[in-house]
Amino acid sequence: MTAFPIQVERTRTLKDKPDIHTLGFGQVFTDHMFVMDYTEGEGWHSARIMPYQPITLDPSAMVFHYGQTVFEGMKAYVTATNEVLLFRPERNFQRLNHSNDRMCIPTINEAHALVALKELVQLDREWIPTAPGTSLYIRPFIIATEPYLGVAASKNYQFIIIMSPVGSYYKEGLNPVKILVEKQYVRAAKGGTGEAKTGGNYASSLKAAELASKEGYAQTLWLDSIENKYIEEVGSMNIFFKINGTVITPALNGSILPGITRDSILHMLHSQNIPVEERRISVDEVVEAYENGTLEEAFGTGTAAVISPIGEFKYGEQQILVNNNEIGLLTQSLYDKLTGIQNGTIEDTFDWTVII
Amino acid sequence: MTAFPIQVERTRTLKDKPDIHTLGFGQVFTDHMFVMDYTEGEGWHSARIMPYQPITLDPSAMVFHYGQTVFEGMKAYVTATNEVLLFRPERNFQRLNHSNDRMCIPTINEAHALVALKELVQLDREWIPTAPGTSLYIRPFIIATEPYLGVAASKNYQFIIIMSPVGSYYKEGLNPVKILVEKQYVRAAKGGTGEAKTGGNYASSLKAAELASKEGYAQTLWLDSIENKYIEEVGSMNIFFKINGTVITPALNGSILPGITRDSILHMLHSQNIPVEERRISVDEVVEAYENGTLEEAFGTGTAAVISPIGEFKYGEQQILVNNNEIGLLTQSLYDKLTGIQNGTIEDTFDWTVII
Repeated sequence: MTAFPIQVERTRTLKDKPDIHTLGFGQVFTDHMFVMDYTEGEGWHSARIMPYQPITLDPSAMVFHYGQTVFEGMKAYVTATNEVLLFRPERNFQRLNHSNDRMCIPTINEAHALVALKELVQLDREWIPTAPGTSLYIRPFIIATEPYLGVAASKNYQFIIIMSPVGSYYKEGLNPVKILVEKQYVRAAKGGTGEAKTGGNYASSLKAAELASKEGYAQTLWLDSIENKYIEEVGSMNIFFKINGTVITPALNGSILPGITRDSILHMLHSQNIPVEERRISVDEVVEAYENGTLEEAFGTGTAAVISPIGEFKYGEQQILVNNNEIGLLTQSLYDKLTGIQNGTIEDTFDWTVII
Repeated sequence: MTAFPIQVERTRTLKDKPDIHTLGFGQVFTDHMFVMDYTEGEGWHSARIMPYQPITLDPSAMVFHYGQTVFEGMKAYVTATNEVLLFRPERNFQRLNHSNDRMCIPTINEAHALVALKELVQLDREWIPTAPGTSLYIRPFIIATEPYLGVAASKNYQFIIIMSPVGSYYKEGLNPVKILVEKQYVRAAKGGTGEAKTGGNYASSLKAAELASKEGYAQTLWLDSIENKYIEEVGSMNIFFKINGTVITPALNGSILPGITRDSILHMLHSQNIPVEERRISVDEVVEAYENGTLEEAFGTGTAAVISPIGEFKYGEQQILVNNNEIGLLTQSLYDKLTGIQNGTIEDTFDWTVII
């Protein structure tokens, strides 16, 4: 491995840690952060760990105007034997570079990023909460920092990693959620930025989520932008259906985010010899399965919530109940197994976890 | 008019002004900026003009992660009689509020924003350049500032106005540009954010622009996201064609930005009794017009460039030359007339300019 020197400045005043039994999501941050700069001609440089502190940018910095950003989400857990585990972190940095490519941001050295992340987590390891359902959420992100109002790729960037001790993403814990099928707004189009983890995808989703929330729905089910009938994602998660014993998830098509939890679930299903299909699936097919009694389970997957059971869809006037609005057996077992692997209570036969 | 108190802190050290004969675009900023904060429950507050200075935000501020931003672009001119003119500024603040609505950002008081803008321009009026083709570019923008990693609309925002003395947007001045018709990437989809002026639209355009630039093209021509055949915009401008004496521009359809320069050109054409159509127009129609000799002119419109003549399109293997790669008569006359109205050398019969 190439040497990757990181300058470390420790904080002089450690912050108070929050009560781990009442943790929310992404509002409290650890003592330190990792920062690295990119300058055109010089590349990525000045890797440093420093006290968690505000970012200072010129008001003309491009991130404020043209949305050139990418990010990742991952989690660290501490085991009963006090080991710190990361879950498939190399996949996150790989995906970050795919996002970078789409958004015209210079790629990072993935091995160096992992070295930096490990050092940062090690330094703030006392922040990893231990209560059931809790973890240390890790947010690597890159922002365009050049002070320039022309529409072009920035010449300067910052790569930053911040970390937040978190409880469950949903306040209510693992409970089936109600989903509104979105017929007007679109999350991402073919040829757009849907498969990149970039700010604009999330900004564009807020309006539909706000309208869904007003009607009592937790999330939006996104359909394709061309025919407005094929299922893409749910909220900011990938989606799975169990229909007549077969698990179906939309195939990656360029506008769907290639979720790492999605990929892990697919591997787990294959290893259990459960029939699984990655293909186009229309809302009509789900309605039909509901009507003929073969729609057995549905759930979303993502790093923040891990697995989120779906209890009901609303599609126009049509109400689709899933498994009597209860958590399905497969959904529960996948959740237990995956979170078990992530927090070290279940043997990791997939070689996914990385010990720091 | 309601009172709108603005606290003013003048800079102690005026910056050196740039040479107005070698001005670029959006890289030099004036002495002051306007800032106003939004806090949930309190609304917009703390309107202030202060010395131009960096913005300091928590690394978890939502603008860095979820791209919740909107912006505007407008220009101020100084006339031969030393009056300062703005061009249809109320339309910009109206559009800003439309963008706000799409992006779940609280609307601003448009009258107050205009008061603030006038006061800011007045304070920095010495920065308005006077050489031909120059102006003071004004950039109002709003960013989500809440420190929170959940995907949701921010509870806090900043509304900021910065200003930059600018020359021509294109270094080469008013010259026909070469345009590549984009077949793979999409700028915006029906149901997406195309009609809002938000960062994500610009971030998503960078990749195609980069590829076009490598092949020697100045801009990308965007097609619709569904059939990939109807013309939407060119780069970050609206587009007009003159075919057989009639001027045609794509009708606003939800994914096209409702340009203020576009609207002004439409009014000017109507007032000159030039036949004009706002409707769907396919690339095939443009190719056919080229082949039968009726494609007379083509140009882009936008605040930064005002009018940008198009000399050539490339669509797959097809090369489409417009008016022998020379500026068309109508294009030149519209440019002369509109910039004349904007800088006060031509009588403003449309009542567009606002004197400060």
